[in-house]
Amino acid sequence: MKLQLALFSSLFLNAYFYFCLFLHHHQPPPSLGWAGSAAREAEAVAAIDCSGHGRAFLDGVLDGGGLPVCECNKCYYGSDCSRLLHDCAADADSGDALFFEAYWQQQAASSAVVVSGWHRMSYFTDGKDDLTIELEKHIRILHQAVGNAVTDGKFIVFGAGSAQLINALVYALSPSNASSSPASVVASAPYYPFYKEQTNQFETRAYGWGGTTSDLANASVSSATNFIEFVTSPNNPDGLFKQPVLGTSAVIFDYAYYWPQYSPILDPADEDVMLFSISKISGHAGSRWAVIKDEGVYERTTNYLSLNTMGVSRDTHLRALKLIKVMIAEKGGEGDIFEFGYRTLKARWSKLHELVSSSSRFSLQQHSAQYCNYFGAIRDPSPGNAPSRTNEEEDHTYAWLKCEWKEDEDCHEALRKGSIISRAGARFEADSRYTRLSLIKTQDDFDLLLKRMQPLVSREEMASS
Amino acid sequence: MKLQLALFSSLFLNAYFYFCLFLHHHQPPPSLGWAGSAAREAEAVAAIDCSGHGRAFLDGVLDGGGLPVCECNKCYYGSDCSRLLHDCAADADSGDALFFEAYWQQQAASSAVVVSGWHRMSYFTDGKDDLTIELEKHIRILHQAVGNAVTDGKFIVFGAGSAQLINALVYALSPSNASSSPASVVASAPYYPFYKEQTNQFETRAYGWGGTTSDLANASVSSATNFIEFVTSPNNPDGLFKQPVLGTSAVIFDYAYYWPQYSPILDPADEDVMLFSISKISGHAGSRWAVIKDEGVYERTTNYLSLNTMGVSRDTHLRALKLIKVMIAEKGGEGDIFEFGYRTLKARWSKLHELVSSSSRFSLQQHSAQYCNYFGAIRDPSPGNAPSRTNEEEDHTYAWLKCEWKEDEDCHEALRKGSIISRAGARFEADSRYTRLSLIKTQDDFDLLLKRMQPLVSREEMASS
Repeated sequence: MKLQLALFSSLFLNAYFYFCLFLHHHQPPPSLGWAGSAAREAEAVAAIDCSGHGRAFLDGVLDGGGLPVCECNKCYYGSDCSRLLHDCAADADSGDALFFEAYWQQQAASSAVVVSGWHRMSYFTDGKDDLTIELEKHIRILHQAVGNAVTDGKFIVFGAGSAQLINALVYALSPSNASSSPASVVASAPYYPFYKEQTNQFETRAYGWGGTTSDLANASVSSATNFIEFVTSPNNPDGLFKQPVLGTSAVIFDYAYYWPQYSPILDPADEDVMLFSISKISGHAGSRWAVIKDEGVYERTTNYLSLNTMGVSRDTHLRALKLIKVMIAEKGGEGDIFEFGYRTLKARWSKLHELVSSSSRFSLQQHSAQYCNYFGAIRDPSPGNAPSRTNEEEDHTYAWLKCEWKEDEDCHEALRKGSIISRAGARFEADSRYTRLSLIKTQDDFDLLLKRMQPLVSREEMASS
Repeated sequence: MKLQLALFSSLFLNAYFYFCLFLHHHQPPPSLGWAGSAAREAEAVAAIDCSGHGRAFLDGVLDGGGLPVCECNKCYYGSDCSRLLHDCAADADSGDALFFEAYWQQQAASSAVVVSGWHRMSYFTDGKDDLTIELEKHIRILHQAVGNAVTDGKFIVFGAGSAQLINALVYALSPSNASSSPASVVASAPYYPFYKEQTNQFETRAYGWGGTTSDLANASVSSATNFIEFVTSPNNPDGLFKQPVLGTSAVIFDYAYYWPQYSPILDPADEDVMLFSISKISGHAGSRWAVIKDEGVYERTTNYLSLNTMGVSRDTHLRALKLIKVMIAEKGGEGDIFEFGYRTLKARWSKLHELVSSSSRFSLQQHSAQYCNYFGAIRDPSPGNAPSRTNEEEDHTYAWLKCEWKEDEDCHEALRKGSIISRAGARFEADSRYTRLSLIKTQDDFDLLLKRMQPLVSREEMASS
């Protein structure tokens, strides 16, 4: 009887082990080959604890243990970024869209990409003019999905860096005939200062900077002058929708901010020359594209690019494609990047607005409400955390702050004294009573901005009372 | 007894199962998290069979089954690239260093890199002027390990694309004073045609193309003229070591080919302005760097880059770092990329040389023997497949072919009639009796080149006999 019991138990154990070994594990995950160690390395680096105030990168400087060190957010320090510098100025200067970091960490699995050692080594890709066929296709799908631009029947050009395509288009729209007078490149103030800085630097016999459009109204301009007008809409810094004012045909529409995070989406833009930037959609520096109608302009643009850099690194193509695929796949769902962006920035704006409204020292730009086709089409407008574009509309990218107090003539300087770094209105050829605060950097940057604004507002209340 | 036997068997089986379950598998590989699916995706694409005449890429066009299609080598077609086009011309035109593909496939595990969705999203890196600290450090280590350049006390600038830095340096060396006469950009023929094409295209008030140095000897040149001289050494197309001929201070030394695959390494280069290109070392298009001694020139170069593209994509930094780390780690061992390159190209050169020598129609450049510090220092010179630089020296990058037959005045055209695409000597401002054949493309390209050369040589033998 004892023997029977023992046998029964043993057989039961046999069955259990058998189940464990052959049935439970009947589908082991396929073990990884050559890509495994790179994946493990990336995961080890991602797991490094930087206290939420920094992050470690695969190509960071190594510590004594051979792992990359934490790279801390501004004003934080220490091996795990847990310590806050006491007198550190809030930096609201650049338009570095780091608030998207949290989004991509949520999308870790779908947005990761493995670059093999032999990935696209050639100078040439499968597509025309060094743009891969799939990337071009997905850029068109993205515009269609968002509804912000018409790309049918137009050419797409992909450029390195955020700035290269700007000059490429100026070149392409300038007179190719050497005997023509140079094109005059202009914009309406306030405008993105880079247009002027770059045009001045790369000025050739074919084009040069011509000033602001309001300067032109006061000057006598030869009717033979060719103008190239930059129109940024929504505008950087003030977020207003803009139209060309000169009525000439050579207009470069910079739509870097015409995405649902930053702006209501009205009709899809359908202009001849349009610029977009991935850095403002996803937060990744380093690639822009242009949508161009005219074949001649397109060819001059790609010609410029081929002599300027011979195309964009293939790693960038591959990564941009992966990111755009995530944006398209997540559209309208839990992981919608546009909704993430809109919600994050709206919350920031509300806090800043509340603080600024508590005093008479500063004011912020306000826009009239406009219906957003992107969010309107996918959800009912409702109050609370659901995006709604039917109520009063704000700009969520940059705060275009005005100093209202008479003695604060230089608003940038007034903030600087309060340990806030902003971008002075004068840089945009605007009144120095204005200055720009970037709302799209890290949460730490934004929190510190609020903290530094607080005493400026309170102190001023006391001073004016 | 039966019961005992059964119990014994069952216990034995349990012991075996226990061993399998808990002892044999006591160290399961750590299972992968977020990076796992990207790694599996990359491995699935790498496993696609393209018959050795093509490869599939992660960002390739998808077939009906959702996997990327094979992208075939030139002249091959079919879903697995197994079919050869009958009348396809051999293309020996571009300097696309695709022969390295095989090397990186061998180094699959060590050269793969995972780019996370949130990898270095900022416009800024941990280093100065957008170059990561680790990449800069490893560029210096690589030069030290190869012995081809002195970087101590010099600045490193990293540029997008293979062409951007060329113009950036011309800009940086041009007079910044607007009242100075423009700098005259020159080179000695035969020279890389890109210098002229790019300078002409981007010509500003500060510089323009000035022709070849031999043109200058015949012209009356104002002593006030500022010259910027390009010196490529070893030279493209003919592989000769070159020196500046004008004796002016503004010289851009392009050392794209001063690596042990292509050239004996003599003393480390120690010039004020030196250019290198990763595309020729590893085969990856898309990044160059400059080594610059003077701080003013360095600052003007980075200023140009910041207005031209605002730095290089971070994905490119990360990948370039990984590749350079492999090159350094494998140096002197089985996987030495320089030895791989040297062996591959020497074998190709020998075959072409043998074929060309069999007729009087063509001749190839020959250089005098020079000792290579790189290989000399790490192994005894010995015949056979071990690299030796003590015997007669050849150029292995490009064949600078001369048509010797009187009626073959246009050598490029003579080859074209035989279905070979070469790069005409006239493009380098050389005699049209010369043409350049690239030896660094895929094995298929090279094999087809030999196949198309064969009848040209044989037919000519008949014609001349």
